[in-house]
Amino acid sequence: MKLIIANKNYSTWSLRGWLVLRGFDIAFDEVELELFTESFYAEIAKHSGAAKVPVLVDGPIEVWDSLAICEYVNDQYLGGKGWPGDIAQRAKARAFSAEMHSGFQALRNEMPMNIRGRRKISPSEACLKDVARIDEIWAGQRQEFGNKGGWLFGEFSIADVMYAPVVLRFITYGVALSPDAQAYADHVLNSAAVQQWVNESKSDTSVVAEDEAGTEIS
Amino acid sequence: MKLIIANKNYSTWSLRGWLVLRGFDIAFDEVELELFTESFYAEIAKHSGAAKVPVLVDGPIEVWDSLAICEYVNDQYLGGKGWPGDIAQRAKARAFSAEMHSGFQALRNEMPMNIRGRRKISPSEACLKDVARIDEIWAGQRQEFGNKGGWLFGEFSIADVMYAPVVLRFITYGVALSPDAQAYADHVLNSAAVQQWVNESKSDTSVVAEDEAGTEIS
Repeated sequence: MKLIIANKNYSTWSLRGWLVLRGFDIAFDEVELELFTESFYAEIAKHSGAAKVPVLVDGPIEVWDSLAICEYVNDQYLGGKGWPGDIAQRAKARAFSAEMHSGFQALRNEMPMNIRGRRKISPSEACLKDVARIDEIWAGQRQEFGNKGGWLFGEFSIADVMYAPVVLRFITYGVALSPDAQAYADHVLNSAAVQQWVNESKSDTSVVAEDEAGTEIS
Repeated sequence: MKLIIANKNYSTWSLRGWLVLRGFDIAFDEVELELFTESFYAEIAKHSGAAKVPVLVDGPIEVWDSLAICEYVNDQYLGGKGWPGDIAQRAKARAFSAEMHSGFQALRNEMPMNIRGRRKISPSEACLKDVARIDEIWAGQRQEFGNKGGWLFGEFSIADVMYAPVVLRFITYGVALSPDAQAYADHVLNSAAVQQWVNESKSDTSVVAEDEAGTEIS
């Protein structure tokens, strides 16, 4: 099984595809392409008309889009354990994940993932609203599941995969969170899988100008 | 079971939540709220912090976001039959659905759903690219599954739920499609469920200015 991803410093969707495999201890090879280069588009076009990373290639099966990859991995390798077992909790986990998948546009535009950066920005009202909603989700789940494993639904799930890149964005831009939300963010950051990604992102020295938002903090 | 939706003329996500239930013949009550009014926000806030329609209320379980609703319905009521049975086809159906869920921003901005309208717009290059990608998906699936039921994967699936509102957008803005893609669009439009929604949208006489794009064609 092969996962095609892009620059570890910048590509949030790549992190999600990678984390669902790594977080659930599924073996895979990774192929890293440099964002927005000619070879990036040429390679990606071989696998999907969507022209986006990540792409999971599992024998003859090719899956693109991180959420679809998560559901595929859940079906094919996790026997459904990628989501909470309880139907009500599973519905909630999927709703949170779908919110992240299609929403938070202001946050995604104004706070691009840039793991090595420490930046100051002036967030819009819409961006602050996105931050507040994420704080509400993380804090609420922490209160309910904090002492049952530390992840959004206690045990690690696809919902954590979807929100992990946001933890890294918040560090770059110095976003202050409520104590419960911060406790969740710390849990994610300190996990072995996320630490591995952060360490590996250090060898990504290329610069993607459009993802270098804000004023550098030295 | 109760589905909270918004104006049938305009709300694509409402149509998706509604269509997964109606298309699979699952009984439900519907509650229609008028978009962007005070009572809309007050009512929606009772069910989710995401403040968006549709919301499915099934006893104590509340699910928001149309894709999460589809997955919930698939789990709870369809025994997995909401998606193709074959794992490779299921992965593809989820990838197409995820593309629709998080992407096609230019098309969504420039061609808002407005079922009763017939409008002329000057689409951007990004919007034309979105149309071309959708044509590619529909035509490709039609070639493979056209004589096996007429839906994207032969039998009706959640992938059709995700793309159905686009069929209605294309009619409003007179978008020309390749013959195979048009054959799929016709199949969707002529289905009993979509016909019912279109008919019911006629009693929605309110006007949402931001969704009235383009020049009226009389």
